[in-house]
Amino acid sequence: MKPLNSLNFSGGPGALPESVLLQVQQAILEVPEVGLSVLGISHRSDWFAAVVQETEDNIRALLGLDASYHVLLLQGGATQQFSMVPMTLLRGQQAPAQYLQTGYWSGKVLPEARLQGDIEVLWSGQSCGFSRLPADDELAFSADAPYLHYVSNETVEGLQFNRVLGREDVPRVCDMSSDFLSRPCEAERFALIYAHAQKNIGPAGVTVVLVKDALLQDAPTDLPAFLDYKQQIKAHSNLNTPPVFSIYVTLLVTRWLLHEVGGLANMDQINRQKAALLYQALDDSEGFYRGRAAVPDRSLMNVAMTLPSVALEQAFLAESALAGFSGLAGHRAVGGIRASIYNALSLTAVQRLTEFMQDFRRQHLS
Amino acid sequence: MKPLNSLNFSGGPGALPESVLLQVQQAILEVPEVGLSVLGISHRSDWFAAVVQETEDNIRALLGLDASYHVLLLQGGATQQFSMVPMTLLRGQQAPAQYLQTGYWSGKVLPEARLQGDIEVLWSGQSCGFSRLPADDELAFSADAPYLHYVSNETVEGLQFNRVLGREDVPRVCDMSSDFLSRPCEAERFALIYAHAQKNIGPAGVTVVLVKDALLQDAPTDLPAFLDYKQQIKAHSNLNTPPVFSIYVTLLVTRWLLHEVGGLANMDQINRQKAALLYQALDDSEGFYRGRAAVPDRSLMNVAMTLPSVALEQAFLAESALAGFSGLAGHRAVGGIRASIYNALSLTAVQRLTEFMQDFRRQHLS
Repeated sequence: MKPLNSLNFSGGPGALPESVLLQVQQAILEVPEVGLSVLGISHRSDWFAAVVQETEDNIRALLGLDASYHVLLLQGGATQQFSMVPMTLLRGQQAPAQYLQTGYWSGKVLPEARLQGDIEVLWSGQSCGFSRLPADDELAFSADAPYLHYVSNETVEGLQFNRVLGREDVPRVCDMSSDFLSRPCEAERFALIYAHAQKNIGPAGVTVVLVKDALLQDAPTDLPAFLDYKQQIKAHSNLNTPPVFSIYVTLLVTRWLLHEVGGLANMDQINRQKAALLYQALDDSEGFYRGRAAVPDRSLMNVAMTLPSVALEQAFLAESALAGFSGLAGHRAVGGIRASIYNALSLTAVQRLTEFMQDFRRQHLS
Repeated sequence: MKPLNSLNFSGGPGALPESVLLQVQQAILEVPEVGLSVLGISHRSDWFAAVVQETEDNIRALLGLDASYHVLLLQGGATQQFSMVPMTLLRGQQAPAQYLQTGYWSGKVLPEARLQGDIEVLWSGQSCGFSRLPADDELAFSADAPYLHYVSNETVEGLQFNRVLGREDVPRVCDMSSDFLSRPCEAERFALIYAHAQKNIGPAGVTVVLVKDALLQDAPTDLPAFLDYKQQIKAHSNLNTPPVFSIYVTLLVTRWLLHEVGGLANMDQINRQKAALLYQALDDSEGFYRGRAAVPDRSLMNVAMTLPSVALEQAFLAESALAGFSGLAGHRAVGGIRASIYNALSLTAVQRLTEFMQDFRRQHLS
């Protein structure tokens, strides 16, 4: 059996909603309101200005953000933000910025930040194999830090914060690449949020940045234009040719979230049901499927697990592929099995996976 | 009448070949050899590694380049290269790099380069309103310059070089964004060529960089990873999630160039026919359609012109839109009319435009 989009549990780029894919398919030949292929429309057209504006408005509406936040649609992925954040906020500062190392991705941020200035790793999960997140009493937030940086959801280990960290008087910067727009997130408590699109909100190639205007008051003025938040803001994300296609698809996903799903509270409820089903399957498996993450820190987006042996894991991947599932291999850094259940993955798909897991376990226990 | 893809003379993002659009349309729901939507396939899959490899191979084959050149597929557009080039080649150098200012785009490069080091503007067309390109005897190339930078085709003014500039002993860096893969270009005489995709070779969101291995010997080692050519080379353009979709479409365009068009010599011949038809229409119009560019420097990609009055230009745009043409407005920096005739624009489309131009002139002269 061929892999099915509806059973694509990829860690990213992730599956997109079918209703969005159908609209995109039409737009490849002709965007209805324009008459041209989406791939051949000028980024200086009125149509594209309206696309950017509606995408911004939809993101603001979904998160309940006011005009004190700018919404940017940039290139370069979260990786570009690993550098843009400290280039903007760390250079010339006295005190170090505080960073949390809670897994693979927050670890990737650290060397890039260190190239730009002094940072302090406030807490690291390295000694516990990134199996859990820190408790509040393990975190000594400094009042002097120019900002606090953390990653809200670690895709590789399947860890997710269920609370907002840090002090109200120190700017919070958060990499929400893998759970942005999957649930309400108290966005107004953050100074800067960034998220690449390719998990929950669109194709690879565009990154959403929300930034509070006041945060940029003392930003350096000698940065390359494309790395300068202020110049990007002034240009309405159209400083140079933006990734028109990826932004258009992101617009369609935000419309889907607003008008089909009915907002982030509804999306959260569906995502919780999906995660609950899968974790129940783990917990009912008598140790056959072992979650990587400590129970209180389990991610609603990425269910990372191991099986009793590598041979069983390989059999699981082979048999699930034959059944039409895809994307279930764990991240190359850790191996094992991972089911990524981003917004577009349906409850039905998760039900089918849990049934497959039960069958597989039954067959391989006997 | 609605605008037609086949009559889309946009300055960029430009039209793509119809046979490519049909394949892309299918891939939105299902890439045939994978079974999944191209928007939901992992960038770490074997399939995507093969996409990158074949795109590189096709570009090498089209240009006759050997393995001493790396082919990179990056984000950030030509604008990112405006900075990456001097970050890599200019920092710490004694002598200034030499830059040519031949139009709007080569002018945009200068402030970004100056942020990174000392540059000399070897020649500027500003005093002649960028109506022509320099002759050889106007250019004093320095043997000490770390590199020479120029733009092969200026889209706004419609100027294009018909020769390779500079000395053999000084690395040539060329922004070929608007004529890359439109003709043979003696690529082996350049040390670094960059080109965003959205004119001739794909959708906005990906930029091709060809760089000679030897050029990077003394490159700095303290650049952010995504701005470091060496790290991008080591990661095979997969340092962080690349723009999978834009790269896939670029692959399809390179296949079209190789297997349908039959290579760059053929493409060049078609492009010359298209340009000849249009310039003939200008030259036969008794000054009604006036080209911006001096005759010897006329671009094969962008035919920029003015009409006797702004009112006539507006009438031209309105009437051509009613006839199904689009993208004919000149760049916002200069106004007027511009027909961009990139690879995917057919000879038939250009014939229809010249017929329209003749009709329009006849009607508005009487």
